[in-house]
Amino acid sequence: MQAEAEAARAAGRRLALVPTMGALHDGHLALVRDARRRGGEDGHVTVSVFVNPTQFGPAEDFDAYPRALDADLDALAEAGGVDAVFAPTDAAMYPFGLPPYATVAVRDLDRHLCGATRPGHFEGVATVVTKLFLACRPHLAVFGQKDAQQLAILRRMTAELGFGVELVGHPIVREPDGLALSSRNRYLSAAERAQAVVLSRALRAAEAAVESGERDAAAIQGAMEDQIAEAPLARPQYAEVVDAGTLQPVDTLSPESPSGGRYLAALAVFFGDTRLIDNTTLEVGRGA
Amino acid sequence: MQAEAEAARAAGRRLALVPTMGALHDGHLALVRDARRRGGEDGHVTVSVFVNPTQFGPAEDFDAYPRALDADLDALAEAGGVDAVFAPTDAAMYPFGLPPYATVAVRDLDRHLCGATRPGHFEGVATVVTKLFLACRPHLAVFGQKDAQQLAILRRMTAELGFGVELVGHPIVREPDGLALSSRNRYLSAAERAQAVVLSRALRAAEAAVESGERDAAAIQGAMEDQIAEAPLARPQYAEVVDAGTLQPVDTLSPESPSGGRYLAALAVFFGDTRLIDNTTLEVGRGA
Repeated sequence: MQAEAEAARAAGRRLALVPTMGALHDGHLALVRDARRRGGEDGHVTVSVFVNPTQFGPAEDFDAYPRALDADLDALAEAGGVDAVFAPTDAAMYPFGLPPYATVAVRDLDRHLCGATRPGHFEGVATVVTKLFLACRPHLAVFGQKDAQQLAILRRMTAELGFGVELVGHPIVREPDGLALSSRNRYLSAAERAQAVVLSRALRAAEAAVESGERDAAAIQGAMEDQIAEAPLARPQYAEVVDAGTLQPVDTLSPESPSGGRYLAALAVFFGDTRLIDNTTLEVGRGA
Repeated sequence: MQAEAEAARAAGRRLALVPTMGALHDGHLALVRDARRRGGEDGHVTVSVFVNPTQFGPAEDFDAYPRALDADLDALAEAGGVDAVFAPTDAAMYPFGLPPYATVAVRDLDRHLCGATRPGHFEGVATVVTKLFLACRPHLAVFGQKDAQQLAILRRMTAELGFGVELVGHPIVREPDGLALSSRNRYLSAAERAQAVVLSRALRAAEAAVESGERDAAAIQGAMEDQIAEAPLARPQYAEVVDAGTLQPVDTLSPESPSGGRYLAALAVFFGDTRLIDNTTLEVGRGA
C-alpha cells in the first residue's frame, strides 16, 4: 500500500483516504464521493477496510462486528470505483501482536462522551489512524461527523504529530426518518429500529431549545432525555452538551466560550446490546 | 521542512535523517558521513537539531543541556555540508504546549536500563522521533548505537507503526582512551574526565569475561562493577546484561536465547551530576 501511495504521490496525484471498518452503507459511500470530488482530476482515492481490534473494549462487539468485504467491494464498484482498497489483515497491522509495542495516546478530549465509558477506545483509534496514514500517505482524509469526538481527537492528533494530512468532516447521512446511518443499525430488531428515531428527535429538541433561547446546558440535556424516554426500548448512556473544541461539559451556553459559542450536543443510546450514537452542533451567536 | 522533504522525494532523491539534540561532536559527524554515503549520488541529508523537552525528567538537565546552533552549523559546513538543517522551535514541535495532546507510548523494551530510572523518557523520544519522521520524511535515519536502548525501541516503534523508514545504527565513536563521545562529556571536570575511562574498561572486562567462557550474567555484571569501582568519582547507576532483542535481564548467556545468543552489556555511571552511558554487544556462539 505504501509503495502504491508513494508512486501516486510521485506522479503528482492528490491522495484521499476514507478510513472505514467495512460493512459499507450509503454514509460511507457519501464519504467516498466527497473524497473523489476533493481530489479532482488528479485525485487518488483509497478506502481502507479494517475492523480494528484495539479500539474495541473486552465487552464490546469486536467479534460480532459485521464483516462483508465482498459486498463492500461490490458497493464501491457500483458507486463508481476507487483507486485502491486497503484491507489489511490483523497481522499486517499489528506485526508484533497485541497489545502493540507502540500506541498513540491522546489526552483531555477523550474524557467525556464516548471516552468516559470506552477506556482505551480513542487510543486504539489514534493508533490505527496513525498506521493508516503511514500506509496510505494521504493528503486528505474524510471522516463522518457522526463520530464527532473521534474527528475532534484525530484533528488534534494530526496537528500535534504533524502529519500534514487535511482532515475533512462529512455531514451525517440519515435515513428518511432521521436515524443516522450506521453499520450497527443492522443489529436492530424491527421494534428497536422504529424507536431508534428518538436519537435524532432528541437532537432536534436540543436545537429547538437553543433556538427558543435556552442557554442552560442541563435544561437542554433534559430536553434530549425527555425525547429518549419516549422510547421504551431505549437505554440512554449519555446525552451531553460540551464545548465543540475542548469537548468539556459546560453549564451555560455563551457566545464568549472558548469555541466562540459552538457546542456539541451528543448522545449514546443502547437498544438491547446495540449502541447507537448521534450528535449535532449547537451555535449561540452574539445577536441571540 | 515537510515541503522541502516532499519536493526532494518527488525528485527521486533518497532522504536520510540524522536526528540530534545539537552540541555536535565527531560522533554526530560520523553519523552524517554515514547518512551521506548511504544516500549515494541522489542522497539528501537532513540533520535535525532539537533539544526535546519531553524526553527530560523534571530533575534532569534540560535547561543546562548545551545549545550551540551556530557552532553546529559551522561544524556541519566544515564536514562538507548537508542538504537541510531542521532546527525547530519548541512551539513548532509542540503546537499545543506541554504535555502534548498526542504522544507515542512504548512498552516492555523501556522497563530496564535507562527506562527504569527515566520514566517517560522513551515516550518522549518515541514522540519526538515520530514528529521528526513526519516533518523530514526520510527513507532512512541514522542513530548512534551509544543509545542502544533508544535504537532498539525506535526500531520496534518504526516497524510497529509502519513508518517505512530504515533505521541504521552507527557504531559508537570513542576518544583514544575509549570514552564514548557525548555532548555531556563537556560537563566533566579534568579529574572526572580522566576517570570516565572506566565505562569502556568495564565493557572490555565484560567482553573478556565472555571470551574466557563466563556465561553467568551476574558474574559478568560483577566484572563491570569491579572496573567502575576503580574510579573513586564514579557513581554507577546500572551495569546490566540483557537480551539484545527484548532488553530483558537474563541469568545465563546461551546461544539458544530469543536473540540467538546476542546480548547487550550496558551501563550508566554518574560523575557528579553528569550521567554517562555506554554499551557493547556480547555474543555467545554454539561453538563456544
